[in-house]
Amino acid sequence: MDLKQGAQTYEMPHLLTYYECDETGHPSMSMLLSMISMASDEHSMSLGMDTKLVQQTGGTWVVSGYEGELTKEQPTFGDTVILGTRAVAYNRFFAVREFWLTDQEHHIVYAKIKAIFVFMNLTTRRMESIPPELITPYQSPAVKRISRLKRPAKLSADDEVLQKDYQVRYFDLDANHHVNNARYFDWLLDPLGRDFLRHHRLRKFSLQYLREVRDGETVASRVNQPQLVDDQLLTRHEIKVADGVNAVAGIEWDNC
Amino acid sequence: MDLKQGAQTYEMPHLLTYYECDETGHPSMSMLLSMISMASDEHSMSLGMDTKLVQQTGGTWVVSGYEGELTKEQPTFGDTVILGTRAVAYNRFFAVREFWLTDQEHHIVYAKIKAIFVFMNLTTRRMESIPPELITPYQSPAVKRISRLKRPAKLSADDEVLQKDYQVRYFDLDANHHVNNARYFDWLLDPLGRDFLRHHRLRKFSLQYLREVRDGETVASRVNQPQLVDDQLLTRHEIKVADGVNAVAGIEWDNC
Repeated sequence: MDLKQGAQTYEMPHLLTYYECDETGHPSMSMLLSMISMASDEHSMSLGMDTKLVQQTGGTWVVSGYEGELTKEQPTFGDTVILGTRAVAYNRFFAVREFWLTDQEHHIVYAKIKAIFVFMNLTTRRMESIPPELITPYQSPAVKRISRLKRPAKLSADDEVLQKDYQVRYFDLDANHHVNNARYFDWLLDPLGRDFLRHHRLRKFSLQYLREVRDGETVASRVNQPQLVDDQLLTRHEIKVADGVNAVAGIEWDNC
Repeated sequence: MDLKQGAQTYEMPHLLTYYECDETGHPSMSMLLSMISMASDEHSMSLGMDTKLVQQTGGTWVVSGYEGELTKEQPTFGDTVILGTRAVAYNRFFAVREFWLTDQEHHIVYAKIKAIFVFMNLTTRRMESIPPELITPYQSPAVKRISRLKRPAKLSADDEVLQKDYQVRYFDLDANHHVNNARYFDWLLDPLGRDFLRHHRLRKFSLQYLREVRDGETVASRVNQPQLVDDQLLTRHEIKVADGVNAVAGIEWDNC
């Protein structure tokens, strides 16, 4: 990926705090997604599009999914990192954005993440076409087709599943009055347990949001027993509320 | 409080992120405590005392309690704030530290917080005397007596108590391999519910840690129904694991 090519790019330095990192001293996935989401907000604001302006259209940007990869070398709290992003392409309904997390000199790319955004009507809570005034400032190309993110494989009835339930907490809500979508990753990974999480590092992931988790709900986070497929350790995840599936994810792991 | 008087002071700017803020757009208490804890770490490192050096003594700093007050005006995500701290005084077993959160021009003091630290032996998990080489660099005065923080009033058997249980999650652990003590505040406040938390702002608090919460445990967070005492709305809190009390807190609230 040529980080600088094409449309508007935006970068910001960020001092990695200890509370953005987990026990390994490296950023947790939920904090990584929170950080890139901040970069995306700062990018928008730098182009004059703050939340107020966006909401005047009666809608809001919503991430429909992420996919990404992390390199073996990860930054440690106390490091200053670079958060970067650019709008890659869009059509009437979808906008693609790339993110990167690098060291200050851009020598090490710690993470590369792609996100697909849709635009949601705040009243109907349904997807609607992206208002042109909210997309043209990014100077990304309008395209016919946006290739979808690879949909993670589903859990099957045969899978031996680990499940843990999580109540949504007040502090899972952010200033948009909705559950911060980065928090899903804490629910996704926690059932794997400390022993697994300390001795494996996430190499690749794909996460799709299907239905919003709401305040007051209890989610079930379900994951299969980690499986070796073609020498690659995989987990498949789902977040459910009652009988509905709210999010699915697939993760590739390495030992560490 | 004269913020600049006395011993070594340390200040750092910090861009307040949306994920450090709750639904109100202002910092959550757990994130506020995380931020000041970072300032305290950065202060130590600026004086050559990093975690490695501290742990070579076989011990670690542990916060035994916080008390503080927040002003009505609070910063909003996107603001750059100043995190400041100074070592106030110490004796053989206790060290007192003050923290402040201000705007960039030091015109508005958003929060003033006092913390008492003890030094814990990592093997015995017991308090021990503070190694001189870890306290003299702060140039704070050695004193005979450290005045204790005001102990929050206990819940009584007559209280009508709200209780919610919380499993400790993997991502509650930080790089010290212990539950991040700032997280206690999420447990403390969540049982009060969204309706209360949106319409009240914390004005004063006192929090004492009595016993460490460990990985794998489930805590019960208990709070009385908010009570008016001399026109001041108060809540009293405890965090329990089984029959032991791990933390107690008292909070004064204003309407907002």
